Amino acid sequence: MAERAVFFLSDQTGVTAETLGHSLITQFAGQEFRQTTLPFIDSEDKAREAVVTINEAGKEGALEPVVFSTLVQPELRAIVKESRGLHLDIFDAFLKPLSDEFDELPTYASGGAHGMSDIDAYMKRIEATNFALANDDGGISRNYDVADVILIGVSRSGKTPTCLYLALQYGVYAANYPLTDDELETGELPSFLVQQKHKLFGLSIAPERLRQIRKERRPLGSYSSAQQVRFELREAAKIFRRYKIPYVDTTKFSIEEISSRILDSTGVERRVRP
Amino acid sequence: MAERAVFFLSDQTGVTAETLGHSLITQFAGQEFRQTTLPFIDSEDKAREAVVTINEAGKEGALEPVVFSTLVQPELRAIVKESRGLHLDIFDAFLKPLSDEFDELPTYASGGAHGMSDIDAYMKRIEATNFALANDDGGISRNYDVADVILIGVSRSGKTPTCLYLALQYGVYAANYPLTDDELETGELPSFLVQQKHKLFGLSIAPERLRQIRKERRPLGSYSSAQQVRFELREAAKIFRRYKIPYVDTTKFSIEEISSRILDSTGVERRVRP
Repeated sequence: MAERAVFFLSDQTGVTAETLGHSLITQFAGQEFRQTTLPFIDSEDKAREAVVTINEAGKEGALEPVVFSTLVQPELRAIVKESRGLHLDIFDAFLKPLSDEFDELPTYASGGAHGMSDIDAYMKRIEATNFALANDDGGISRNYDVADVILIGVSRSGKTPTCLYLALQYGVYAANYPLTDDELETGELPSFLVQQKHKLFGLSIAPERLRQIRKERRPLGSYSSAQQVRFELREAAKIFRRYKIPYVDTTKFSIEEISSRILDSTGVERRVRP
Repeated sequence: MAERAVFFLSDQTGVTAETLGHSLITQFAGQEFRQTTLPFIDSEDKAREAVVTINEAGKEGALEPVVFSTLVQPELRAIVKESRGLHLDIFDAFLKPLSDEFDELPTYASGGAHGMSDIDAYMKRIEATNFALANDDGGISRNYDVADVILIGVSRSGKTPTCLYLALQYGVYAANYPLTDDELETGELPSFLVQQKHKLFGLSIAPERLRQIRKERRPLGSYSSAQQVRFELREAAKIFRRYKIPYVDTTKFSIEEISSRILDSTGVERRVRP
């Protein structure tokens, strides 16, 4: 099937255009897409370069390109729109109704969502990341008293990436502790965790998925055997029930979704907003 | 000044509604906002709960709420829209023109942007995160031959969070190596880095900002002294010039922007899309 070119244009990183566009194009199962991000379009020259790139993708017999953009400046939007393709821009669509509601004109300043005002947010995210690293895998500092949440689960259930995502995205202090034979065989959590029981959150995962992930890391041995994996997950589930620890099954979710579900379920407040 | 309630509604995590809404409301400098995310609205009951919450925020004398939403299902959108407030929904605005262009009806399936089809992406992001952790701060494995990019810079210039963000967001294999007295005094990089020169990317930072960050970590001693910080940054800049290493000044940018600029500048391909 012919691929259709999809462009994400931005005067900034393009993350907003990408997330917006991605959630829209995945609604159409019958299409194949070739995705390209064109970030940092902050001058008329760069806007004209983007026009050339888009026209190139849309020439002779190709499917009409789709252009998702988040260009604040009306002049740059006007240039880009001269290219071929279906153009969808969030500022085009939504700035006017907001401006009417607020009875205020937009600043048209690019990068307002980041910039110097966000130094505080940057620091918080870095501190949260350092916290996650120092408190990864039951490690070094065990500053569980200042943690917002402590993830527990068996090895390779997704604890580390989830903690790092919570830190980088939301500035949340997330520690994690691995359930190993000590806990799994006795069914008991160490007392320093029981003291923080209200902060505990479990990660579960389907046995087959866990085997697959573990095999990537260590193909041989009991670590990824069906028997071992099932034993660990069964005992971990018992611990979650025994201590009434909420948990999420990570099998079907992306890291973003797991993180979001943890915040939603625990009520932990994010320290920064994206 | 009176705060205006802003809601981000989603049948998924709310990340798309947040990034969209945030880039729009920051265009209005004269407003104060109180932001609330209501994720996982995937049933009529939850949609009705959201209506109650929004109406509560918009009652008697309060400013009209603004509601950014990404609700795929038309029935849920219809319920939510019965609440007070200005409603802006990307599916409402953009699904129709896309459907016309593609000559295909949307699936209206929620969560298409994530889900099982993304197991491969999940694995890649986890592997990239493990790579970043194992190759953080010149550490353990030094698998620089499989790195996509190797960040260098002085201590606290932002290497670790940037590497982790590149891994989690884009599945990019990012290692980092700290410039310490060894390199700064001789002006020479170790040979294992020179061999990978095409992968090197520098992080610079303003002296005052670096002092501020270092003081948070270690308030006393030469580590955060004006003299030491200026020496390190001056010598690091010489190394970037000597070896013709591209670099970005991290002072004014968010982690997202730094990461995006690195990909843009190096041409490194992301292994996954958000």
